[in-house]
Amino acid sequence: MEPAMIALFTDFSLSGPYTGQVKAVLHQIAPAVPVVDLFADLPAGKPKPAAYLLAAYGPWFPPGTVLVAVVDPGVGGSRAAVVVEADGRLYVGPDNGLFEMVLRRAGAASASEILWRPDKLSASFHGRDLFAPVAARLARGTLPLGALGGGGIGRHPDWPDDLPEIVYIDGFGNAMTGLRATVLGEQTSLAAGGHAVARARTFSDVAPGTAFWYENANGLAEIAVNGGRADSALGLGIATPVAVLP
Amino acid sequence: MEPAMIALFTDFSLSGPYTGQVKAVLHQIAPAVPVVDLFADLPAGKPKPAAYLLAAYGPWFPPGTVLVAVVDPGVGGSRAAVVVEADGRLYVGPDNGLFEMVLRRAGAASASEILWRPDKLSASFHGRDLFAPVAARLARGTLPLGALGGGGIGRHPDWPDDLPEIVYIDGFGNAMTGLRATVLGEQTSLAAGGHAVARARTFSDVAPGTAFWYENANGLAEIAVNGGRADSALGLGIATPVAVLP
Amino acid sequence: MEPAMIALFTDFSLSGPYTGQVKAVLHQIAPAVPVVDLFADLPAGKPKPAAYLLAAYGPWFPPGTVLVAVVDPGVGGSRAAVVVEADGRLYVGPDNGLFEMVLRRAGAASASEILWRPDKLSASFHGRDLFAPVAARLARGTLPLGALGGGGIGRHPDWPDDLPEIVYIDGFGNAMTGLRATVLGEQTSLAAGGHAVARARTFSDVAPGTAFWYENANGLAEIAVNGGRADSALGLGIATPVAVLP
Repeated sequence: MEPAMIALFTDFSLSGPYTGQVKAVLHQIAPAVPVVDLFADLPAGKPKPAAYLLAAYGPWFPPGTVLVAVVDPGVGGSRAAVVVEADGRLYVGPDNGLFEMVLRRAGAASASEILWRPDKLSASFHGRDLFAPVAARLARGTLPLGALGGGGIGRHPDWPDDLPEIVYIDGFGNAMTGLRATVLGEQTSLAAGGHAVARARTFSDVAPGTAFWYENANGLAEIAVNGGRADSALGLGIATPVAVLP
Repeated sequence: MEPAMIALFTDFSLSGPYTGQVKAVLHQIAPAVPVVDLFADLPAGKPKPAAYLLAAYGPWFPPGTVLVAVVDPGVGGSRAAVVVEADGRLYVGPDNGLFEMVLRRAGAASASEILWRPDKLSASFHGRDLFAPVAARLARGTLPLGALGGGGIGRHPDWPDDLPEIVYIDGFGNAMTGLRATVLGEQTSLAAGGHAVARARTFSDVAPGTAFWYENANGLAEIAVNGGRADSALGLGIATPVAVLP
Repeated sequence: MEPAMIALFTDFSLSGPYTGQVKAVLHQIAPAVPVVDLFADLPAGKPKPAAYLLAAYGPWFPPGTVLVAVVDPGVGGSRAAVVVEADGRLYVGPDNGLFEMVLRRAGAASASEILWRPDKLSASFHGRDLFAPVAARLARGTLPLGALGGGGIGRHPDWPDDLPEIVYIDGFGNAMTGLRATVLGEQTSLAAGGHAVARARTFSDVAPGTAFWYENANGLAEIAVNGGRADSALGLGIATPVAVLP
C-alpha cells in the first residue's frame, strides 16, 4: 500500500507558531506519515475562494491522502466540524463552505460531522486541537468508533461552478482565478483590473513583460506576466472580478 | 516510548538557507526524529521578548522534546552555549536570557554549559554548527561524555514575571503580549497604542472590525481585531507597552 | 551508508502550492528520504546569481545528497533538463547556466541530459512533474535505464569565477555577494551602493549600527550591519555591483 500522506491547506501562514504546532500534533500521533504544506497562505478568513482552490488542488494528491483544510473565521463559534470523503481522499475542517466545490465535483462523496472532542479545546485554534488529531487518526486508521456521525454538511447551491474572481496571488504575483481552463475556449480572452489578456501555453511562449493567461499546473486559469508581476502590473487582488470575453 | 521531537524556535526566518541547513544537520545526525518549526520569525536579535514566548510555547510540547532556541545577537562573541532541562524538556541555545522565564516557571530545572565544539565552527552560524549537532545528539541520546558541564547559566532577576509589552505580531496582525491571561481578571481591559480593549473569548464572539484581547491557545494575552489586523488598526509593534487597566 | 538527503534550491517560494507539491512527489516516490529547503526564495527567474549561490551552498551537503535546483524562466520551452554529478552530489534541474559554477569548481564532474518524461508534463511546473520524480528516483537508485543520456550541458565560459554583484538578500537584510571570501584579502574593503565597508569576523565584533563585510558561514563575502538591515541602510538590491577596493 502507498503510504498515506497528510497535506495542509490553511490560512495559518508559515510564520508564527500555528503550522508548526499542527505538525507537532500530527507527528506525535502519526509519526510515520509525511506531512506537506499545500497552501499555508490562503486568503485569510475567506472560505469561498479557498473552496475553488481546494477542488483544483486536492484531487491532485494520491487517493489515501488526508487533507487538513482550515480557513475558519467562525472558530470557537457554533459552526460544525466535518470530515468529507471524496474520491478516496479525506478532507477535515470546518463546515463553512470550504468543501462545497470538492463535493460538487466528486464522483463519489460523503460527509460526516466530527463528534469527537479533545480533553482540552482552545477557543481559537481548532486546527491544532481538533482537526489535526482527527486527521492524524484518520491517516493511521485509529479514529475511535463514534467519533464521526451526526449531521450532514451545509451546502451552497448558489455558488457558481466556476468563480469569475481572483482567488489567490502567488509569490511571483501570478493571479489564479476560480475558473477552470477546461471550461474556457482556446481563443478566449479574460479581462481583469481593466486589462484584457489572451491565452498562451506558458511563460516562455510570450515576450518578456507581456501579460497573458494560461492553464496552470492544476487546471485553473491564471493571469501572469512573463518576467513580471501580474498583480501590480494589472492591479489585481483577491476578489478582483474576472470577465470571460467571448 | 513516544518518539522524541525537535522543535525550532529562532529568528532565522524560513527564507534563506538558515533553517534548511539546521534541519539538514538534524536529519543527518538524527534521521528518525521529526523536526517542526515552532517559530522561525521571532523578533530578530531580541532574547527578552523571546524568553516570554518560549516559556508559553515550550511546555506545550510533550516531555522528551528537544527545543533548539536561537536568538543570538552575540553569536561568535563570548556568550556561553547552554542546555537547559526543564520539566522533562531540553532546551539548547545561547546563554543570553532566552531561557530565563522557562527556568523561573519550571517545577524542576537544571542548566549546563556546552563544552563540546565541532571541528569547524563558523563565527556567525552557531545554530547550524553548534546547537543543531548538540540537539540532535541529545534527541538520540548520543551526546559524548564531557560535552556538558562547566559553568551555570546567567540569570535575570530584574525581568518581570510577566512582560507588559507586545512580544510578537503574527501573520494576521494579532499582537501577542508577554502577559499570561491567567494573571489577568475576566473583567480586565488592556491598553496599547493609545487604545483600550476589553476581553473576549474568541474572534467570533465580537462584531467584525472590533478590537479585543483574549487568552490565546498558549495562554498569552493577545490583542486582535475580528476580521482585521490589530497591528495596523491600533498602531502596535514589537515592544509597544501594554497597560493593564484595573 | 549515510541516508541520502534531498535539498531544494528554487525560486518557488514557500508560500503557495509549489514547494509543497514538489515535496509531495518526493515523499511519494522516496518516502524514507528527508527533504530540506535550502533556498526557496532565490532571485526569481535569474539563473546566473543562483549559480554562484549553488556553488557555495551545494558542496556543504554530504556526498550522496540530491539537490533539486530549479530557477527556470524557460520552463516549457526548448531548454534541456539535466543531471549533474559533482564530487559525489547529484544536481537536477534546467540547463540554463544554473550548474555552471558547480561544474567549474568541482574536482570530478559529469552531466547528462534527462531523456525520461512523465506521462503528464505541465507546461509551467517541471519542478513538480519532471525534476522531482527524477530526483526522488536518483535518491532511491531506481531511475530507469535510458532515463539519462543524450546531449551534454551548455557552458558559460564568459561568466567570471567570482561575481562582483549582490546575489541574495536574506530576511535580516544581509546582502550576499557572488565573491568568495577566500579570494579577498584580510584588509580588503568592498564598496556597494556608494558605501565602502571594511572586513570584520562577525556581527559582535563591530559596534551596533556599523556596516561591514564578513565571510559568511558558506564562504561568501556578505555585507551586513550589526543590529540593522544592510539592504536598506546601504541601498543594496539583487544585481547591485560590488567593487573590491585594493
